[in-house]
Amino acid sequence: MDYRLEKDLIGSKEIDNSKYYGINTARALENFELNNKAVNMDFIREIAVIKKAAAIVNIKLNTLTEEKGNAIIKASEEVIDGKFDDQFKVSAFQGGAGTSTNMNVNEVIANRAIEILGGQKGEYEIVHPLNDVNMSQSTNDVCPTALRIAAIKRIRKLANALAELQEALQIKENEFSDIIHLGRTQLMDALPIMVGQGFGAYAKAIERDRWRIYKVEERLRVINIGGTAIGTGLNATNKYIFMVTDVLQDLTKLGIARSDFPIDTTQNCDVFVEVSGLLKACAVNLMKISNDLRLLGSGPRGGFAEIILPMCQAGSTIMPGKVNPVIPEMVGQVSMRVIANDTAITLAASSGQLELNAFIPLIVECLLESLELLEKTVIIFKEKCIEHIIVNELNCKENLERSTALVTALVHHIGYDKASDLAKVALKEEKSIREVLYDEGTYSKEEIDKILNPFELTSPGIPGK
Amino acid sequence: MDYRLEKDLIGSKEIDNSKYYGINTARALENFELNNKAVNMDFIREIAVIKKAAAIVNIKLNTLTEEKGNAIIKASEEVIDGKFDDQFKVSAFQGGAGTSTNMNVNEVIANRAIEILGGQKGEYEIVHPLNDVNMSQSTNDVCPTALRIAAIKRIRKLANALAELQEALQIKENEFSDIIHLGRTQLMDALPIMVGQGFGAYAKAIERDRWRIYKVEERLRVINIGGTAIGTGLNATNKYIFMVTDVLQDLTKLGIARSDFPIDTTQNCDVFVEVSGLLKACAVNLMKISNDLRLLGSGPRGGFAEIILPMCQAGSTIMPGKVNPVIPEMVGQVSMRVIANDTAITLAASSGQLELNAFIPLIVECLLESLELLEKTVIIFKEKCIEHIIVNELNCKENLERSTALVTALVHHIGYDKASDLAKVALKEEKSIREVLYDEGTYSKEEIDKILNPFELTSPGIPGK
Amino acid sequence: MDYRLEKDLIGSKEIDNSKYYGINTARALENFELNNKAVNMDFIREIAVIKKAAAIVNIKLNTLTEEKGNAIIKASEEVIDGKFDDQFKVSAFQGGAGTSTNMNVNEVIANRAIEILGGQKGEYEIVHPLNDVNMSQSTNDVCPTALRIAAIKRIRKLANALAELQEALQIKENEFSDIIHLGRTQLMDALPIMVGQGFGAYAKAIERDRWRIYKVEERLRVINIGGTAIGTGLNATNKYIFMVTDVLQDLTKLGIARSDFPIDTTQNCDVFVEVSGLLKACAVNLMKISNDLRLLGSGPRGGFAEIILPMCQAGSTIMPGKVNPVIPEMVGQVSMRVIANDTAITLAASSGQLELNAFIPLIVECLLESLELLEKTVIIFKEKCIEHIIVNELNCKENLERSTALVTALVHHIGYDKASDLAKVALKEEKSIREVLYDEGTYSKEEIDKILNPFELTSPGIPGK
Amino acid sequence: MDYRLEKDLIGSKEIDNSKYYGINTARALENFELNNKAVNMDFIREIAVIKKAAAIVNIKLNTLTEEKGNAIIKASEEVIDGKFDDQFKVSAFQGGAGTSTNMNVNEVIANRAIEILGGQKGEYEIVHPLNDVNMSQSTNDVCPTALRIAAIKRIRKLANALAELQEALQIKENEFSDIIHLGRTQLMDALPIMVGQGFGAYAKAIERDRWRIYKVEERLRVINIGGTAIGTGLNATNKYIFMVTDVLQDLTKLGIARSDFPIDTTQNCDVFVEVSGLLKACAVNLMKISNDLRLLGSGPRGGFAEIILPMCQAGSTIMPGKVNPVIPEMVGQVSMRVIANDTAITLAASSGQLELNAFIPLIVECLLESLELLEKTVIIFKEKCIEHIIVNELNCKENLERSTALVTALVHHIGYDKASDLAKVALKEEKSIREVLYDEGTYSKEEIDKILNPFELTSPGIPGK
Repeated sequence: MDYRLEKDLIGSKEIDNSKYYGINTARALENFELNNKAVNMDFIREIAVIKKAAAIVNIKLNTLTEEKGNAIIKASEEVIDGKFDDQFKVSAFQGGAGTSTNMNVNEVIANRAIEILGGQKGEYEIVHPLNDVNMSQSTNDVCPTALRIAAIKRIRKLANALAELQEALQIKENEFSDIIHLGRTQLMDALPIMVGQGFGAYAKAIERDRWRIYKVEERLRVINIGGTAIGTGLNATNKYIFMVTDVLQDLTKLGIARSDFPIDTTQNCDVFVEVSGLLKACAVNLMKISNDLRLLGSGPRGGFAEIILPMCQAGSTIMPGKVNPVIPEMVGQVSMRVIANDTAITLAASSGQLELNAFIPLIVECLLESLELLEKTVIIFKEKCIEHIIVNELNCKENLERSTALVTALVHHIGYDKASDLAKVALKEEKSIREVLYDEGTYSKEEIDKILNPFELTSPGIPGK
Repeated sequence: MDYRLEKDLIGSKEIDNSKYYGINTARALENFELNNKAVNMDFIREIAVIKKAAAIVNIKLNTLTEEKGNAIIKASEEVIDGKFDDQFKVSAFQGGAGTSTNMNVNEVIANRAIEILGGQKGEYEIVHPLNDVNMSQSTNDVCPTALRIAAIKRIRKLANALAELQEALQIKENEFSDIIHLGRTQLMDALPIMVGQGFGAYAKAIERDRWRIYKVEERLRVINIGGTAIGTGLNATNKYIFMVTDVLQDLTKLGIARSDFPIDTTQNCDVFVEVSGLLKACAVNLMKISNDLRLLGSGPRGGFAEIILPMCQAGSTIMPGKVNPVIPEMVGQVSMRVIANDTAITLAASSGQLELNAFIPLIVECLLESLELLEKTVIIFKEKCIEHIIVNELNCKENLERSTALVTALVHHIGYDKASDLAKVALKEEKSIREVLYDEGTYSKEEIDKILNPFELTSPGIPGK
Repeated sequence: MDYRLEKDLIGSKEIDNSKYYGINTARALENFELNNKAVNMDFIREIAVIKKAAAIVNIKLNTLTEEKGNAIIKASEEVIDGKFDDQFKVSAFQGGAGTSTNMNVNEVIANRAIEILGGQKGEYEIVHPLNDVNMSQSTNDVCPTALRIAAIKRIRKLANALAELQEALQIKENEFSDIIHLGRTQLMDALPIMVGQGFGAYAKAIERDRWRIYKVEERLRVINIGGTAIGTGLNATNKYIFMVTDVLQDLTKLGIARSDFPIDTTQNCDVFVEVSGLLKACAVNLMKISNDLRLLGSGPRGGFAEIILPMCQAGSTIMPGKVNPVIPEMVGQVSMRVIANDTAITLAASSGQLELNAFIPLIVECLLESLELLEKTVIIFKEKCIEHIIVNELNCKENLERSTALVTALVHHIGYDKASDLAKVALKEEKSIREVLYDEGTYSKEEIDKILNPFELTSPGIPGK
Repeated sequence: MDYRLEKDLIGSKEIDNSKYYGINTARALENFELNNKAVNMDFIREIAVIKKAAAIVNIKLNTLTEEKGNAIIKASEEVIDGKFDDQFKVSAFQGGAGTSTNMNVNEVIANRAIEILGGQKGEYEIVHPLNDVNMSQSTNDVCPTALRIAAIKRIRKLANALAELQEALQIKENEFSDIIHLGRTQLMDALPIMVGQGFGAYAKAIERDRWRIYKVEERLRVINIGGTAIGTGLNATNKYIFMVTDVLQDLTKLGIARSDFPIDTTQNCDVFVEVSGLLKACAVNLMKISNDLRLLGSGPRGGFAEIILPMCQAGSTIMPGKVNPVIPEMVGQVSMRVIANDTAITLAASSGQLELNAFIPLIVECLLESLELLEKTVIIFKEKCIEHIIVNELNCKENLERSTALVTALVHHIGYDKASDLAKVALKEEKSIREVLYDEGTYSKEEIDKILNPFELTSPGIPGK
């Protein structure tokens, strides 16, 4: 193999010469050899965007030559385009508050820029990873800024996905708006309700999620780039700080803005807890909806069996013909993962100390995973489940008619206690409320049918009045 | 003892005649005999407010006689005033989605109203807990509405408390704006920073909390009263629904509004997860700040010892003279409890099924506890800790001077790698960076002092330029 | 009011002379004024037991006079007997690692002992809270020791309660051992199973809980009393350390043992995380069982309706005759609380620093609450729910016969793919598998009935062979 | 591209003929297209082991021909050897309780066995994924069994890793057994302690982890293979059940045993919660230790600076010479992830319903990740951090001498209150306790030095006596 020798604070080390990363990355690969997940690629790419932005500004400010600067810009663009994805394999759970990831990007861009300028990898006097690529930056302003940008981009996709899910639910709300079935509270027979009304409630919940997630973007827009190591801006000029924010706005097309107090933005991670908390609320709604669908679709013979979920795959290796609600089950598990990620984010954010939070790599991993998982899940939920749900009207009707739900319609006519007695009779004698009333004779059949019209019971008012 | 006999769906039961509650409450006391916490009294009082509002409306709609209605109103007011607090002892962790609590209020108000009208407790033909006190209502619209109102009132208090804390932190920001000390990242010596800048970062974080919590009130304002059992409004007329919301607005002076889709508001609890998630973000900030204060105040001789926390009580039963940071420690524990309550709220909210969430009593308990604990804690934190913090300037100065933090100021002058070598020399030879530079001779003493002026290092720019 | 003046490190303070507690407690009441829960009384009592034990030993070692020592012993016994419960109102979420609670006990015992010896409260030269009552002790060995003893006592009660629940489930296992119903996987119709077999599975799960909780007592038996402030034992002689452990064994009748490395036992709280983790596993089983019961009991007409839970109270303020599964719902909520307490305990335990964990008061509160809540809940679950469950055999039979569950019996006879086709036909034509087979004619009616005998399908083997 | 047509319950589908998996896997890849993690490969391999075991038994029982059976065995071995890793890409968060994973293994083995027997992929009449490879099995007994086996293997590795960490800590305990430093409680100066004693406490905590994790293997040994779909064993003969367990014992060399009640083992997941709870306790200890090391190593000039952690990589892209505690920071983050995984496992396990837990794939993913991450982390912690820690004796000495920690030694001589006054004087006059005592004159210099000998203060007893 072909090696080059690189040096750092600790000493020197042979680096496989086919690699674009350098000694800092190589040490990180060894130090955090967990064989688990590598750092999220969205995050890597946004760091490269920041490198490009800094180079553009530093060229303008004459702190970087055009030649060097343009090589850095070109190399950054190649990283952004995914040409060096295989050079970013450091563990997501790395120590060092993201320094290894920042260095990994610095080194890959430096070595690629060196090549562009006709040099050999490792000839850092041509382009230096720190003095040139990292110029005016620190891990501690680069990483939070990249995370915020990556999160905003994912948030927009998630908000769009939720809008689509909401729409799909509303279509079902309309489609099932005239199909009545038995509403249940605490799983016990309660009152009649339209199947469509249930989907309407799901749509409302998802609408809130969409809105919340759409709105929280505001909170992420404040970036601390230019704050350097601890937010005080040492080694970054005011000119640079203003310009780099403008360039980043331009490159990302996002309404990001300079923090007016980057010391805060560098050390405090509560905003990520806020975002994750909203993702958790979304997960809670997805769990509720997916569990309801599994319940209403239970059967096909021995359950509620009031809706039929689309068949996505064979359900059993031993029970022929069995079909399972695999999409709602996937939705449930992703929701649980999002809730678990919130635990990790909360732990990490609460462990910040003084001028920095050392655990930001864990926040990066968990927040971006939650965002991506939710987005994908919401789309699958819509496309492979919600859109294809149909109602078993026969079962809806039977379950409703057999129930004693209609007795509540009588409370205004005969009082709670008497109505309660009627319900007991119906249950004991295995009759419907209608039958018991016919037998009992206080009201005429016409009056009874008027009071007990289930369709009237699904909107406000006193039945029969 | 003096007993009265009451009846319900199950049978009859002797009730201690000194009690205002009736058979439903008595059964709940037996069923949920956990000897733990009773239902939150704020919540009880808001239910009584709803009873009063319903009575006012039902009088106007002639569904309740003035005599009965006024007795119910008066009895409700007595509950609101706390005269019957000892009648509400059902466990906070009750089954039944709050029915026991709603019945408890119904029964106490009914029996008190009966007394007001000259009857004896238990003479429910005079005032009936269900037919009269609960008229047009269901547990399932009463409880979520009462929780939202109680939460809004607590939220306002918490937002005010946070505003006070923010102000106290800003006062310290100004007070310590000229005292420089060593900033640390990952607990390691980093760069100079003003002590006041640190407090400014805390103030910023608390400002976000205040804003978030202030804003989330909006989300709670939508109430489902009038939706009755499952949000369809059965047994509540449209007139009643509009009027009762107006009356509640009037009684509470809050900008609450009728849900336009009460089926959703009845069954979905994601809004409480959202609120709790924000309280968790606040808890995270409080943990960060309180941990920082404990760290900066560690010592008094063998720690960082850069700030001095007020002495609140003797700290040890064995070590004389020891004083502990008891207030930050309390803040930390309350924060952990709030995070734990968020777990409970998330579990409960995600367990809703179909038209109702059976676990809303747990949400009531945990959300209102978090709100109250945070409010009280924030006030104590401010009054017994933040306001009395002083800085140990001597230690601040010594820690900064001894550190190698100043070496970063040289990066623009000599490059990262050379600066790194200097830092190594300083550490090895137990010298300060200044001393090493003096010895080394590249720059004159004046140039060195200009570059290494720590006060310049706390704001943006290239030192010495 | 009658006051006495007391002094401490900070200054002097007037103390209501009717109170047995002194200045340290008074300050703690002011510092931690959260109006929430006071410290768990079980914990207070075990601290008093330790005070008694220390006095017994110190008399024997002549470091305490018999007169003083006996007064302390008598006063401790009165605290243990609950005579001073109203003197212990400091917040459970106190800072100071339990110092306030230890001082509260020291002060109450000292003042009571002073009275016993004929003095006036506050005359600490007669009996001193620290020099005498706290002699040879520190908060940091007293509190962990008291927590371990209190936890062991609760653990034994919980293990007994679980044994009772297991037995009740086994009785139902036998009672329902011949009643067949439809087993469901992923809520979808699967295979026949005996109702009793389901209860047997619950009994097995609870048996594991019982065993785990019974066994974990071992881990709690190691106590650090005698380790004093940081486990090194300063100010406690070796004689004292051995003797006080023996006396505590004697007073508590528990097999507690001296830690062989009290520095570890003083600072590390992983054992409480272990115990809480097992309580969480128990909570998970209780949630599973209670949710299953709610599901199987759903209806009474429009749900699974295969079991009937006992009626514990009327279920609705608006729907007459409605009965809800209130006990399983309570069980679910308590389980969620236990899981949430585990979050708090994990956070607190992981926040220990160097020689102590400052957050042990939160662990005390949450661990003892979980233990007590679970014990009470398990008993209520058994007595008010499990023991009274009956089966709706008609519904069990109908649900099973209508299902296509029996088709799996054919796999060995006709292969998976052909069986799968039959199931599809049955579902499409709304027939039972039996009917489809009769129609299809490959097998005789006798053969079919032999293969499809559901009772054979509930134990290992190839049906019809 | 070359396709083959496969059929299932839903219809037919073209399958890329280069793939060994079939239509069920292809559908799962589409249904759960989350682009996240694939199913854990350890788990896949243990499923293949079960396939091999079942084939061995079915050959013996003549339910499978030797030819088919041997082909299945050979194909299984190739999967176990990792030759088909690229065929297992279905998402870890799949719905269907693991059916897709089981089918994936069935299909890959079937197609490879067909090839071995000279057929073409897809010729399932030669070897059928269900009738042959899955013979006598169900996903619901295969998956829990494979998870238990995979977990046991990981647990053993983790226990070994913990034993190594414990040993490394004990080596440091001995190495530092004579170096005294300042012990801190609540971060405040407390009493002298040997640096080695602190490492001894860490070793003790890790010893408990090792023991707990070693012991919990017992709980995982009970497997439900043979229980088939719901634990009743339908379509598996008793002979098969006994034999397959024996063969699995033989193949795995583990002391696994047949569940005596597989209905329980199939539906209940509390054992995984138990295991995860213990991993969480281990994570709590790792957090405590890693945080302590970060604290004691803080500096190098402006912190506690009593120990020096090994330099693993350069620490900053902006601050030259800065070195961070990257390994303890990685340990902290992995610990947080393990705690978060416990949340997911708890949620999944508590969501089991009736005869099955639909969310077992999430448990598989999170439990095996936690086990592997902890094992790797513990090794890295030991090798790259603990083993290379050195003590800064000078700082240890200075911090101790400056502190007022020694005053506790006087309590037995002059009483708590007087000692407390002395401490106040020392702090106020910026003197050491020794100096104040010299000045004060009650005791001679010799007496004072005897009482205040810090080395005596690190073990039980009354100083100076």
